[in-house]
Amino acid sequence: MTAYDPSNIFNKIIKGEIPSHKVYEDADVLVMMDIFPQSKGHVLIIPKAASRNLLDADPAVLARTIPQVQRVARAAQKALNPDGIRVVQFNEAPAGQSVFHLHFHVIPVYEGVELGRHGQGKADDAELAAQAKAIAAAL
Amino acid sequence: MTAYDPSNIFNKIIKGEIPSHKVYEDADVLVMMDIFPQSKGHVLIIPKAASRNLLDADPAVLARTIPQVQRVARAAQKALNPDGIRVVQFNEAPAGQSVFHLHFHVIPVYEGVELGRHGQGKADDAELAAQAKAIAAAL
Repeated sequence: MTAYDPSNIFNKIIKGEIPSHKVYEDADVLVMMDIFPQSKGHVLIIPKAASRNLLDADPAVLARTIPQVQRVARAAQKALNPDGIRVVQFNEAPAGQSVFHLHFHVIPVYEGVELGRHGQGKADDAELAAQAKAIAAAL
Repeated sequence: MTAYDPSNIFNKIIKGEIPSHKVYEDADVLVMMDIFPQSKGHVLIIPKAASRNLLDADPAVLARTIPQVQRVARAAQKALNPDGIRVVQFNEAPAGQSVFHLHFHVIPVYEGVELGRHGQGKADDAELAAQAKAIAAAL
C-alpha cells in the first residue's frame, strides 16, 4: 500500500490550515460536515492520527474512533430525524476513497430521497453551518 | 428505535441453529461470508452481543469489534488482492439494513467490476466455501 502522505486536505484541516464546518473536536478526532454531501447531514469522523485508511490504521485508534462514530450517528438521528443512517469507510480510490487520510462517513438516509453521488456538488455554506450546529447541539 | 428481536437469522447462526460459511469465530464475534454477496469475498463481521444496529450498541462492544473488521479487511486484501475495500454498516431498512442484528460489511472492490445489489442472488456454495477458506488462511 502507498504510504501516508501528510499533504492531504484533511490533515491540513486538522492542523488548522484550512477551515471546515466543524461539529466537534478533541485530542483524538475531528468531526465535520462533508462539503460534498450525499445527503442532508452527511458528517465525517476523522481520527487525527496519521493513517491512509483502515488497512494501515493503529487498532487502538480505531477502537477509540468507533464510539465517536456512534455518538455522531446518534446525534444526527436526534438532530435531523432521518429514516436510516449509513456508516461507510472507503479504502483506496477504486472503492471510493478520495482523500487519503482515514475517515468514516455518517450518511443520514431519508425515505424517498436518493443519495447523491459524492462530489457531485458543493453544499451551501449556510446550510452546512446550520447542520453542524444542530448536530453539535445533539452530541 | 425498535427493540432488538432475538429471532433474527444472524442470532440463529450465532447460536448454531443455522449453518454459515464461517471464516472466524471467537467469544466476541462471528465472521462469515455474505451469501448474497455484492462482490467476490464479501464478508460480514457480526458481534455476538445483542444489538439491533450501531445506534443501540454497547460502545465497548464496538471498540472490540472494529479491530476485527480491520483484521478481516487486511485478510481479504491479502487473500483476494482487490483494488479497494468498502466497509459499510447500515442502520434501519431505508439505509439498507435487512437483518436487524448489528453487522459490518467488508466488500472487496475490483477495478472495472460493478458492485452487485445486495440480495440480487445467492452465491455458489462451493465458491463461498473456497473464499472463506482463503480469507481464514490470511487472518
